Amino acid sequence: MPKPPKGIAEARRKEVLEALRQIGKSAYDAIYSGQFPEISLPSRSVGNLVYDDELKQFILGDAVVKRSSRNIKHIRPYTQLLWLAFFANQLVQEERTSTLRDVFYSAQAFNMEFTDQSESDEIITDLETALMKAREDFNVYPDERSAIFGNMIIEYTKPGYEGRRQDLSTHPDGLMIGPALTTAEFIETDAEMVLAIEKGGLFTRFVEEKVHERFKALLINTAGQPPRSTRYVIRRLNQELNLPVYIFCDADPWGAHIAMVIRSGSANSAHLRELTTPSAKWLGVYASDIETYELPHDKLNELDIKRVHELLKDPRYTEKLWQDELQTFLKNKKKAEQEAFSRYGLTYIVDKYLVDKLEMAKSM
Amino acid sequence: MPKPPKGIAEARRKEVLEALRQIGKSAYDAIYSGQFPEISLPSRSVGNLVYDDELKQFILGDAVVKRSSRNIKHIRPYTQLLWLAFFANQLVQEERTSTLRDVFYSAQAFNMEFTDQSESDEIITDLETALMKAREDFNVYPDERSAIFGNMIIEYTKPGYEGRRQDLSTHPDGLMIGPALTTAEFIETDAEMVLAIEKGGLFTRFVEEKVHERFKALLINTAGQPPRSTRYVIRRLNQELNLPVYIFCDADPWGAHIAMVIRSGSANSAHLRELTTPSAKWLGVYASDIETYELPHDKLNELDIKRVHELLKDPRYTEKLWQDELQTFLKNKKKAEQEAFSRYGLTYIVDKYLVDKLEMAKSM
Repeated sequence: MPKPPKGIAEARRKEVLEALRQIGKSAYDAIYSGQFPEISLPSRSVGNLVYDDELKQFILGDAVVKRSSRNIKHIRPYTQLLWLAFFANQLVQEERTSTLRDVFYSAQAFNMEFTDQSESDEIITDLETALMKAREDFNVYPDERSAIFGNMIIEYTKPGYEGRRQDLSTHPDGLMIGPALTTAEFIETDAEMVLAIEKGGLFTRFVEEKVHERFKALLINTAGQPPRSTRYVIRRLNQELNLPVYIFCDADPWGAHIAMVIRSGSANSAHLRELTTPSAKWLGVYASDIETYELPHDKLNELDIKRVHELLKDPRYTEKLWQDELQTFLKNKKKAEQEAFSRYGLTYIVDKYLVDKLEMAKSM
Repeated sequence: MPKPPKGIAEARRKEVLEALRQIGKSAYDAIYSGQFPEISLPSRSVGNLVYDDELKQFILGDAVVKRSSRNIKHIRPYTQLLWLAFFANQLVQEERTSTLRDVFYSAQAFNMEFTDQSESDEIITDLETALMKAREDFNVYPDERSAIFGNMIIEYTKPGYEGRRQDLSTHPDGLMIGPALTTAEFIETDAEMVLAIEKGGLFTRFVEEKVHERFKALLINTAGQPPRSTRYVIRRLNQELNLPVYIFCDADPWGAHIAMVIRSGSANSAHLRELTTPSAKWLGVYASDIETYELPHDKLNELDIKRVHELLKDPRYTEKLWQDELQTFLKNKKKAEQEAFSRYGLTYIVDKYLVDKLEMAKSM
């Protein structure tokens, strides 16, 4: 038998199990004392969303919703939530993972009814809110994955792999960021920064140009808007290893928002604190870079422009850098992709642009 | 200096370089002898697509198109094709990879004009057709990736990694299938089959249930319709190691077509022979499995039904199994996802369904 996993992952697991036990215990306690069991959780309605400037993310306000088995309208969501807590407990105990879709179908094995997956997704978010823990903590993962590469040794805590170590620089196409990586402990690294990159092609270019060695960087392919488990890993690298996080995306409002969600999270995870990296820095590609570097570009379309206007009003975007760049989008009506730098040859983005930007980051 | 890579990858590289040299040489030869250079390639028009029942894929017929620098209308695509051959040669010589998007932008570094990416993509397909080689052979990769896991040792041929070995069972989230994996040599495995799986969640379930050990299987997450490099790896596993390939997808026409494209390729790669696995077997989830296993299901929508009718007329779908299942879709108007088996508990799909299907495969 390998020795039981120690440290952060195991501590988190115990916390989740204890929180789940409390939910069950409160139901039993109520029943034994002749009362209707109920559960209270912070409201996630738009009216209860508050932007916290210090945490740099949305948080939930003081409004609370109650699901009581006394109320005929509440019985269904209350029962579903209780079943989900039971199922989550089983997943964590048995050390199995599941997906959002899987939970929807698994319910049927227990004659637990969900009209469709959107209903079960909603209850999963309820449980997150009740526990103030991400669903990844109770082993419910998304289907999408992104990848990581760099000089780092990790040690798995995943069952069957406990204690085994993995060097993240051995596979140049990258290792998928899934349940095993998310729960691994970071053992050793010479990295001095994390570079999060929107696109797989550029990720591979960075690997080929040895950015991980030349700049002592861990490279993360976010594969578009990163799945939550990837944001969670980025946060862990920042918090546990004190590594600065730099983000490179396309120069369009969608790319900017990828950077923003890595930094400040999304409105629908306002009940969580583990998916943001408040100190993460958006280094490009800026709207203004299109001019500075004379990049090949396309015209912003109507949808892009509508999106810029939305972001301008978003409380996450109040800082000068973000406001200026959004205004530049509106003024020039241009967008460009990361690959546009290939206009100056394949290695320009590493040899010149990345160097410029890391220099710039020093004064941010 | 690591010793130069030997074997299949290096042989392919030499073939490509020689074919590219021939394209350049024919242009020089024509010019030196006072003629207009030109290039001929098989036509990819729909009228020239023929389904080859033995190869189990579409192939190109005898019609040929010519791009001649004598013809004013041809000068643009001829020049683009010649530039691309030059650029591809540079990629292969320098051992760098690129993406479709990257090629579009790289052209601008040479003042080579493409109106948009669809024009450069078309020329890339022209070069594939001229060479009868996949663009991965001249180092142009897609952005999307899928993943692999199982008991196998590979040896990289990718520059900077030549000769280094990787165990595909070390990272339980899976290793990305990108340029490095695609060009690696297969050194050692105890695997007796390849299981290609449509969804990441189920891939992880299979890893957790140790399908790779219990069934001696290499597991591939196709991540939906697999990128070409993944189909290429599946074919290599089948051809080089003689491993049977079994495919599991959702029970809907889109899932069936994922299986079909792995087996027989797509109409727009009729000019290639390296992206199909004619002996690959579609094991499910069948339309009839929805009844057999009493799976939770949804109703086929109009788009699904339209798609089934299209597939019924497709020459790749003439075999009885495929026809029967397509008809069952039409009769019952039901579809189901792989995750639907969770209705019987999380491990049922491995303990019962997979066992049933592998038994069935013996008589196929």
